[in-house]
Amino acid sequence: MTQQFETVALIGIGLIGSSIARDIRHKGLAGKIIVSTRSQATLTRAQELGLGDLYTTSSAEAVKDADLVIVSVPVGASGSVAAEIAAHLKPGAIVTDVGSTKASVIAQMKPHLPDSVHFIPGHPIAGTEYSGPDAGFIGLFQGRWCILTPPPGTDEAAKAKLRMFWEALGSMVDEMDPEHHDKVLAIVSHLPHIIAYNIVGTADDLETVTESEVIKYSASGFRDFTRLAASDPTMWRDVCLHNKEAILEMLARFSEDLAYLQRAIRWGDGEKLFDLFTRTRTIRRSIVQAGQDTDMADFGRHAMDQKT
Amino acid sequence: MTQQFETVALIGIGLIGSSIARDIRHKGLAGKIIVSTRSQATLTRAQELGLGDLYTTSSAEAVKDADLVIVSVPVGASGSVAAEIAAHLKPGAIVTDVGSTKASVIAQMKPHLPDSVHFIPGHPIAGTEYSGPDAGFIGLFQGRWCILTPPPGTDEAAKAKLRMFWEALGSMVDEMDPEHHDKVLAIVSHLPHIIAYNIVGTADDLETVTESEVIKYSASGFRDFTRLAASDPTMWRDVCLHNKEAILEMLARFSEDLAYLQRAIRWGDGEKLFDLFTRTRTIRRSIVQAGQDTDMADFGRHAMDQKT
Ligand SMILES: NC(=O)c1ccc[n+]([C@@H]2O[C@H](COP(=O)([O-])OP(=O)(O)OC[C@H]3O[C@@H](n4cnc5c(N)ncnc54)[C@H](OP(=O)(O)O)[C@@H]3O)[C@@H](O)[C@H]2O)c1
Ligand SMILES: NC(=O)c1ccc[n+]([C@@H]2O[C@H](COP(=O)([O-])OP(=O)(O)OC[C@H]3O[C@@H](n4cnc5c(N)ncnc54)[C@H](OP(=O)(O)O)[C@@H]3O)[C@@H](O)[C@H]2O)c1
Repeated sequence: MTQQFETVALIGIGLIGSSIARDIRHKGLAGKIIVSTRSQATLTRAQELGLGDLYTTSSAEAVKDADLVIVSVPVGASGSVAAEIAAHLKPGAIVTDVGSTKASVIAQMKPHLPDSVHFIPGHPIAGTEYSGPDAGFIGLFQGRWCILTPPPGTDEAAKAKLRMFWEALGSMVDEMDPEHHDKVLAIVSHLPHIIAYNIVGTADDLETVTESEVIKYSASGFRDFTRLAASDPTMWRDVCLHNKEAILEMLARFSEDLAYLQRAIRWGDGEKLFDLFTRTRTIRRSIVQAGQDTDMADFGRHAMDQKT
Repeated sequence: MTQQFETVALIGIGLIGSSIARDIRHKGLAGKIIVSTRSQATLTRAQELGLGDLYTTSSAEAVKDADLVIVSVPVGASGSVAAEIAAHLKPGAIVTDVGSTKASVIAQMKPHLPDSVHFIPGHPIAGTEYSGPDAGFIGLFQGRWCILTPPPGTDEAAKAKLRMFWEALGSMVDEMDPEHHDKVLAIVSHLPHIIAYNIVGTADDLETVTESEVIKYSASGFRDFTRLAASDPTMWRDVCLHNKEAILEMLARFSEDLAYLQRAIRWGDGEKLFDLFTRTRTIRRSIVQAGQDTDMADFGRHAMDQKT
């Protein structure tokens, strides 16, 4: 592919930042990749992995020649990163992020950023339960959606460039306003993670069932939840703190529906149970048809077992 | 491997029954496999797949020469199957099942069965979200646990034979009393499925988020739940109806814990959130170490994507 930016600065080089770095390199999308992260340890590791061309722990230093700046840090750290880089941004640069919440990130970053740059917040809908620079890989964003939440009046040319960048990474790009993004993500991502953390916590606390039993028999369903519940605690703490309203709304709906289901179980209402259990199959089929999941039994885990 | 039984009768030939049939054939564990299912359509399909040596829609007919009878039907149908076969069982035969609940299956089957047979209920902790004879495969039980819940006074030799059979299928075998089984499975299997069905239902009902959005962005967590929520409605209705007490107990614990978590989110208590989100990672690690799940990112789905 052809180069899209002269210089890209990556602030934060964990799972997401390092996957972007690998894709940029792999596809030749930038002339130069500048890697920046707050800790020397992570920076050294990024260097060992050869993720960039220049390395620095100073985000101010990192952005000064960059045409595209991508901030990939926990959402609670967006404000301080924006404050650090603001005075050093090159006029005309595009500044974006990958944070899992959008209204809060905008509220934190926008006040700091000069009018001379194009601030276009984003969120790639792709990830895994692992974090850090070693967790990234080429192709993470392939076939996945990326949501941009550009403020009203955003420069069309800048937006088109950022779109093209994500498309080069294999993504489809959508636009929506940040409040709607936060509501959508509350149900498709934040609630599933919170529920997973919760049920793993419940299992861990039981007196009548031992931890060893939970582990041995986890293949009957439980193990699926433990994957989400192994995700990075800092990232998910920040998501919960920064998308509170939407998450609480979805939690209330979920609990209401669960009470209804619980009642059907208590009163032995097989028909109600059968109806819900039938209705939910349709969504799974649509997700597989849309190419957003494999149709292999058990996510293809069995095929993986055979290989190892 | 060497033959363990002269004649095995399989009553029910869906995911579980047909996987057992394939393993028996593959490993030469029986001289003859008799396949029985209530519908002609499923029986014909089983015959096309070559799952057995003899085929019949009469379970009474199927069991008359069998040394091992394995009942693999929804738990709500255990009683009627037991009533059908009882008078035709060969003295000394071992009768077992694979139902996901145990106290209820025993209550339904035991009264019908003659003292001349060995009734040893069982439950292999393995499965997928698919059902029917096409869904089964060789190796489903490999590396997974199988729980037996033999009544007090069960013949030791018969128990040892059944154990050896599951071990030949690659399983590790545990024994416990049916009430404990039902409690353990309520948390490791039944609650995860109910929660998954529930959240998919909640998402489906929202007015503010469209179904198309839920599908497009499902890779951010939601899709994991849709797999469990695509499981067979009849099977899961029966599980809910037949393990009511234990499920309601676990649901109450789960809801209590969720209220606590909700409160932490409402009050912005980052420390409480961080603590829970850290504690839950340990269980995941133990499950992977115990060989009960892959440690590949995203269950290795990405590797699957690459292959297709
Ligand atoms: N993980 C996912 O599945 C996923 C998916 C989509 C979007 N996201 C979003 O992507 C962003 C990054 O997630 P990730 O999974 O890549 O995280 P990660 O692997 O944990 O990496 C985090 C990066 O941010 C830096 N960082 C952490 N705390 C910081 C702070 N207080 N100030 C400045 N830098 C800090 C880390 O630096 P050091 O290592 O040097 O401390 C590291 O470079 C988050 O906003 C997350 O919401 C994640
Ligand atoms: N699926 C899992 O992951 C899993 C795991 C462990 C244990 N189990 C347990 O294994 C058992 C079978 O599950 P499965 O997944 O193999 O189911 P399945 O694929 O849906 O097959 C069900 C079998 O039972 C027969 N059947 C259905 N309703 C019946 C009725 N009312 N009376 C008599 N026969 C009936 C079906 O016959 P027709 O097709 O001819 O109607 C078919 O042969 C269940 O008790 C389940 O709890 C399941």
